[in-house]
Amino acid sequence: MIIVLKPGATPPEIQHVVDRIVELGFKPHLSQGEHRTIIGVIGDESRVLAEPFQAIAGVEQVLPIMKPFKLASREFNNKDTIVQVGKVKIGGGFLAMIAGPCAIESFPILDEIAEAIKAAGANILRGVAFKPRTSPYSFQGLGEEGLQILRDVGNKHDMPVVTEVMDPRQVPLVEKYADMFQIGARNMQNFDLLKEIGQTRKPVLLKRAMSATVKDLLMSAEYVLSEGNPAVVLCERGVRSFEESTRNMLDMSAVPNVKGMSHLPIIVDPSHATGRRDLIPPMACASIAAGADGVHIEVHSCPEKALSDGPQALLPPVFAELMPRLRKLAEVMGKSFS
Amino acid sequence: MIIVLKPGATPPEIQHVVDRIVELGFKPHLSQGEHRTIIGVIGDESRVLAEPFQAIAGVEQVLPIMKPFKLASREFNNKDTIVQVGKVKIGGGFLAMIAGPCAIESFPILDEIAEAIKAAGANILRGVAFKPRTSPYSFQGLGEEGLQILRDVGNKHDMPVVTEVMDPRQVPLVEKYADMFQIGARNMQNFDLLKEIGQTRKPVLLKRAMSATVKDLLMSAEYVLSEGNPAVVLCERGVRSFEESTRNMLDMSAVPNVKGMSHLPIIVDPSHATGRRDLIPPMACASIAAGADGVHIEVHSCPEKALSDGPQALLPPVFAELMPRLRKLAEVMGKSFS
Amino acid sequence: MIIVLKPGATPPEIQHVVDRIVELGFKPHLSQGEHRTIIGVIGDESRVLAEPFQAIAGVEQVLPIMKPFKLASREFNNKDTIVQVGKVKIGGGFLAMIAGPCAIESFPILDEIAEAIKAAGANILRGVAFKPRTSPYSFQGLGEEGLQILRDVGNKHDMPVVTEVMDPRQVPLVEKYADMFQIGARNMQNFDLLKEIGQTRKPVLLKRAMSATVKDLLMSAEYVLSEGNPAVVLCERGVRSFEESTRNMLDMSAVPNVKGMSHLPIIVDPSHATGRRDLIPPMACASIAAGADGVHIEVHSCPEKALSDGPQALLPPVFAELMPRLRKLAEVMGKSFS
Amino acid sequence: MIIVLKPGATPPEIQHVVDRIVELGFKPHLSQGEHRTIIGVIGDESRVLAEPFQAIAGVEQVLPIMKPFKLASREFNNKDTIVQVGKVKIGGGFLAMIAGPCAIESFPILDEIAEAIKAAGANILRGVAFKPRTSPYSFQGLGEEGLQILRDVGNKHDMPVVTEVMDPRQVPLVEKYADMFQIGARNMQNFDLLKEIGQTRKPVLLKRAMSATVKDLLMSAEYVLSEGNPAVVLCERGVRSFEESTRNMLDMSAVPNVKGMSHLPIIVDPSHATGRRDLIPPMACASIAAGADGVHIEVHSCPEKALSDGPQALLPPVFAELMPRLRKLAEVMGKSFS
Repeated sequence: MIIVLKPGATPPEIQHVVDRIVELGFKPHLSQGEHRTIIGVIGDESRVLAEPFQAIAGVEQVLPIMKPFKLASREFNNKDTIVQVGKVKIGGGFLAMIAGPCAIESFPILDEIAEAIKAAGANILRGVAFKPRTSPYSFQGLGEEGLQILRDVGNKHDMPVVTEVMDPRQVPLVEKYADMFQIGARNMQNFDLLKEIGQTRKPVLLKRAMSATVKDLLMSAEYVLSEGNPAVVLCERGVRSFEESTRNMLDMSAVPNVKGMSHLPIIVDPSHATGRRDLIPPMACASIAAGADGVHIEVHSCPEKALSDGPQALLPPVFAELMPRLRKLAEVMGKSFS
Repeated sequence: MIIVLKPGATPPEIQHVVDRIVELGFKPHLSQGEHRTIIGVIGDESRVLAEPFQAIAGVEQVLPIMKPFKLASREFNNKDTIVQVGKVKIGGGFLAMIAGPCAIESFPILDEIAEAIKAAGANILRGVAFKPRTSPYSFQGLGEEGLQILRDVGNKHDMPVVTEVMDPRQVPLVEKYADMFQIGARNMQNFDLLKEIGQTRKPVLLKRAMSATVKDLLMSAEYVLSEGNPAVVLCERGVRSFEESTRNMLDMSAVPNVKGMSHLPIIVDPSHATGRRDLIPPMACASIAAGADGVHIEVHSCPEKALSDGPQALLPPVFAELMPRLRKLAEVMGKSFS
Repeated sequence: MIIVLKPGATPPEIQHVVDRIVELGFKPHLSQGEHRTIIGVIGDESRVLAEPFQAIAGVEQVLPIMKPFKLASREFNNKDTIVQVGKVKIGGGFLAMIAGPCAIESFPILDEIAEAIKAAGANILRGVAFKPRTSPYSFQGLGEEGLQILRDVGNKHDMPVVTEVMDPRQVPLVEKYADMFQIGARNMQNFDLLKEIGQTRKPVLLKRAMSATVKDLLMSAEYVLSEGNPAVVLCERGVRSFEESTRNMLDMSAVPNVKGMSHLPIIVDPSHATGRRDLIPPMACASIAAGADGVHIEVHSCPEKALSDGPQALLPPVFAELMPRLRKLAEVMGKSFS
Repeated sequence: MIIVLKPGATPPEIQHVVDRIVELGFKPHLSQGEHRTIIGVIGDESRVLAEPFQAIAGVEQVLPIMKPFKLASREFNNKDTIVQVGKVKIGGGFLAMIAGPCAIESFPILDEIAEAIKAAGANILRGVAFKPRTSPYSFQGLGEEGLQILRDVGNKHDMPVVTEVMDPRQVPLVEKYADMFQIGARNMQNFDLLKEIGQTRKPVLLKRAMSATVKDLLMSAEYVLSEGNPAVVLCERGVRSFEESTRNMLDMSAVPNVKGMSHLPIIVDPSHATGRRDLIPPMACASIAAGADGVHIEVHSCPEKALSDGPQALLPPVFAELMPRLRKLAEVMGKSFS
């Protein structure tokens, strides 16, 4: 940590800061310049945050040097993590294609969609039974009945399944049916939920919150990892912005940005990121070229009758048309769908 | 709802949209212009969202007309709601001054702070025992021990107390000790928590999420109200932005904006909104002048030893200096501290 | 400046950075910690930016210490600057009330508005003759004819006048007619225009760009000041955000934030910041309480016939009703309208 | 246009709106629902903006239907525009690779860079002689001397050249030396500059402003087109956001978004968008896969000695390594570098 004192900090103020550093178990290292005094703080930075120093009189800025996450960092593990979901591998050259409807509506509808996407090349089936809705009056999902449908359709088509969990109390139930948990954007900083998932040994798809920085996302992954669950797949799904023609703004550079800082796999969800069917195929292509470990796409055989998020779902034939191009791009990137 | 069709929509496409509208139980009302066909959808808009319409081929835009919240709206209740927390009233001309440290650290520290702020004019004591922290390695709060301390100090100084609840499983415990729940920014869309709080009859301080629109905030209030709990106080605490010199950006216009749309009280938290001690007093003054129903300020007697958020806490004497100016501004606004 | 090296920087890399620092005329000051090497750079930081250092191999971060502006800073001039516009003072306890229509439309309309706002207490008349419009097909302003009308109406009602200048080539013309230049948000970083205005001796109202940080705003002021023109009044007018119910987001904390860093006066424009007539009066009140040196409000006697920005203009009677409350708030703040 | 009246609008209010519509030369078309009255406005929407209607009492919302740009729209010209810069084509399957240093520093440095990038496959040389700098104390560019160097180096290596123009007064000078104008992000809404460029017949590279929506960008292109210059190439270069680990946020979905609305070519500048050398290659790859018509990359042979923007410049060998992968991705997309 580096502490920059205000111009004109008095010797007693400087001494007070030095004393506090020592009191907290660190070694101070002073540099006195013409305009400022700067104090390097030597010691295990992870033990203490910048905050207590920022609050001391005479201190202008506190600049942390170390990244606030450890287990998620490249420094901790330089080799790309491969997360296994059923037979499907994600990361380290293996690409996921997670597809399916937004909400699970019925066995026949999900079955029809699963058959189509499996044939086109999807390797993980998604569908939601507990649905976070902005409005208390919107369809909230089928609950356990939906989980059972998802499991049955997954088994029938031999696809592992991923589904959202919203409440720490639902974890055991969802764990029973799903191969992978999904933590949605709105729950990325639901820390009790993160801890609960961290205590299972099922992989988790952790979506970036609407206004989370890349570091915030990695800190939330750290919560899961620090409880002992190493199987975290990150997901960029767009952030809030002033642009009004898309639902969110897809932060594509988050993909290589995360890969530089962390060994965890990261995939992209262009459905939620753009909210527009016409933008999904080009953004899926761009994700692969950006180095993502997979894509997450909503597909529905009748979007206009979907109980949620119809406008951002591809029709099965459009999805089927997209896959060959994604495979060619994957080849250029030296990767393949798992 | 208004449905705008794409230019060149064919008669069968138009007919298909009309059929779907009827199928969903609404009455279509066509306007054919030179360039576009527009369909007004007449019926109870709250029963169905824009989404299924947006997903129909030939539809360009769907424009909802009605606000998506009901119980929280001015149309539902034109009279300003007054929320009662212990003996303190919030709303309808009564101002709250919620003050206290970020985290509850010990009885003596909280006691000292409570004594000082009560003397200066604070009417509700705050302090957190379950603390949402970005890092799993940061101090997470004292838990039930902290709740007991808060209750005891509140009783000693005859102040009602508010404290954060993060997990639906904690609701009964927190309810036992606190006079008001706080739902933090990160949990504003933790819908299971909102429902759980909605089933109690304790007032709740609902903070705006970092990237929530004013409508999103009111929709989250609607979750609580729709479960039967009418005692919701909203709180503007800053949103994420590109400005790097403050922790968040205080959206002051949210105050009159909410008041135009809703009967619920709204207060402002300049501590979290700015993250800077020097900006708290001017922003507290501005909040009162903007028409807020109160202010939420962090106060700590030794910010540099605070276990969290020291840099955004006022010292008790600075807080005491601020109160007379706030009282004068309140008088200009025709209001008074409860 | 502080240079933080990457973990594992080799001795030759460290030496190379040290050599570059010396080559650029600075004195390096090494601190070798367990995990990182940190180099303090001593010397006149204003001579060189962080960039060349950031580009050196082995460097992880470069942390500037000094503020990038000088003449605009409180360190340069600790006394609040008072800018004189005609007989009106802005800053140091004197408040401006700049009011008028968005665009100048005709003598009778402007005359009617000026009469009303002068009677209510406005002290500077605004109106635009060169209008930056997003669309090339929108009304672009009356040009010199408009400037003449503005001058005549200002003279008739004995009010100094402010008007926008968009192009360096217009500066001499606008200077002839106006008492104060306005640089609009879209031109805040039109550096050639800033330099041109800097070479005049007329005061300038410099509006914050839609995505400018507070530091960016002060850097633009520095352009004007560095050319020799000391009479800069800053204006907060809202920034772009994800909130969709207001035109922009008024960053109220920019007021005390600027005042902490700079001696220049700063006013607030709630008309452009919110784009909504109902939000102007509460935001004008809040601005005064936040410590602003004035307010800028659009007023039009027939907003629905205004050639631009009608929805954000107050009617004269509403403006007249607002003024007494602003005066009372000013009194609480120890200030008065000039 | 659709006008939605407030609930409870009275018959005289409704009549007044209808009268205004007729007065402005449009045909009103009423739909009276249970809760609201909606008025469709039939006529040439491009003649009048929403604003005057929004300002009428009783009006709640005004919803424009038509896009505010014409000449830039796909409706106006459904065929992809190909812009010719010297012998290089941009658009319609032809890709641009614009490369070079940020600022022009000297003939030998530019010559060395040009030789390297030409060999690697760049087809347009960039370099800036008039440089918009946030600080008045930073290097502002070599001016005409720099333009001469750029022309000479371009001629020597047989590459067309693009350079920034900041001030309408510089247009004739820059036109003399350059094959393509660049309008930087800070000048995207410098409307007088846009008009001046629109009166030349040289192609222009128009960069998106830091907080411009995609529609704003197209409106600025419309300014150029409406003056008679059809040769506009758009450039996504990142927008301001809360993410702090990159300089800006690259809005990759702007590429297909623009292509859906407009016939104009669009390229991506990952150097300015990310500000980080390590993110440029993956974002260049993603741009091609997203459907961009080219990429703009800063390259410098000695970034640490670059007079500006060193940290975001690739070294020539890294650039040379990137090109083969971009060519393979282009092939998958059915395109090729011009």
